[in-house]
Amino acid sequence: MEIRVIATAQQGKDFDYKGWTAVVIDVLRATSVITNALYNGARSIIAVETIEEARQTTYDAATALRGGERNAVRIDGFDLGNSPLEYKREIVTDKDIILTTTNGTLAINHAKQAEKTLVACFRNLQAVADFLDNDNKDLVIVCAGTDGHFSLEDGLCAGMLIHLLKSKRKMECDDLGLLLERDYLTHADNLFGSLVECRHFKHLFELGFYDDLRFCLQTNKTDCIPIFKAGKIVKMKKQP
Amino acid sequence: MEIRVIATAQQGKDFDYKGWTAVVIDVLRATSVITNALYNGARSIIAVETIEEARQTTYDAATALRGGERNAVRIDGFDLGNSPLEYKREIVTDKDIILTTTNGTLAINHAKQAEKTLVACFRNLQAVADFLDNDNKDLVIVCAGTDGHFSLEDGLCAGMLIHLLKSKRKMECDDLGLLLERDYLTHADNLFGSLVECRHFKHLFELGFYDDLRFCLQTNKTDCIPIFKAGKIVKMKKQP
Repeated sequence: MEIRVIATAQQGKDFDYKGWTAVVIDVLRATSVITNALYNGARSIIAVETIEEARQTTYDAATALRGGERNAVRIDGFDLGNSPLEYKREIVTDKDIILTTTNGTLAINHAKQAEKTLVACFRNLQAVADFLDNDNKDLVIVCAGTDGHFSLEDGLCAGMLIHLLKSKRKMECDDLGLLLERDYLTHADNLFGSLVECRHFKHLFELGFYDDLRFCLQTNKTDCIPIFKAGKIVKMKKQP
Repeated sequence: MEIRVIATAQQGKDFDYKGWTAVVIDVLRATSVITNALYNGARSIIAVETIEEARQTTYDAATALRGGERNAVRIDGFDLGNSPLEYKREIVTDKDIILTTTNGTLAINHAKQAEKTLVACFRNLQAVADFLDNDNKDLVIVCAGTDGHFSLEDGLCAGMLIHLLKSKRKMECDDLGLLLERDYLTHADNLFGSLVECRHFKHLFELGFYDDLRFCLQTNKTDCIPIFKAGKIVKMKKQP
């Protein structure tokens, strides 16, 4: 089993996903949103790249909700923004959510060419690691980043995932993965504190999304694994 | 003063270098070779991308030497390989060296569009940091990487450079730079040991380049700063 790490959604465009399992990470906040929405009973997430596409995607009006952000703020006329805390059970149960974000949905739309494409965040990471350990395929971790730049919160989450996997079996890992794993090990006791100087984290903090930051940095709160199937992201069925 | 870090020579192609000072790092081994050759009295380094170009570059036969590698090994018919230890005073003094390597010369040829383009490695890093502190311009650090992949030895060197700069003044740094600085601080006491699992380091170790690895990881052995000027890399004149 080999592990590669891609630093941004944009760099994810050129990877040849054939034969790989892909995991997409956009901790702040798209993959935390997707995980929480499916955990809270949403039927599916349809990830699209543009606002126009989100508006034009036709869906049963009774079940569809539009969600997402530009510059971290909810899009005009959309039902939901990009805060995972908005995706409550009473709002999302049995709904199909058409989601567009700046980085996360782009990363997913590249990575969906992989044999399997999963969505991970700190909240479901142990469940994702357990699945991957069982899957035992070559793994590419796509960190979404922010506007084409590497984001350390995604890196930290990738590092934790690599650590969970390597603690189960020996595996080859590229240099970026080695770096992220050891950075995670150094900061495992204080994920929040280790990010206070980081660009996207600071930006969200300044916009007042303090509760989101806390929520997105909580580890292993759910065993919900979002997986890409036939054009949508759905909750993976429990393994027998 | 702002600092950005680019992870590979290939990613360095798309950066808009206008208004930036660039520092290129390819610890193993191109920028260590360039630094050592100029330190030992070479007149200039002409960095070219292909073997063909290196063969066709016409130069005074009395002063020209051809150097470089493919797959870490000296190119057929060339005078020198890519080991800094080959570039001895008695061999390179007053010579112009036409150099082609897999990653370092590519990174330099992208970064030469910057206002100033310097070449750094562990051996001259304090001198480079002192110059940059005085220069006080926005800085892009281009890590050459290996065949399109991030290489941790370049990242460790970038991290040390960032640390030297930040210890002098407050500056904005992107998330990759923050990560590399704190990784350097964790491993400053054992640079060699911290790289033993890394791909390119292991490859050179297995090929028997043990002395090169030791030499390239020695810090602050020279104040020679290679700088790109009018198509060549030359030794920067001492500041008055």
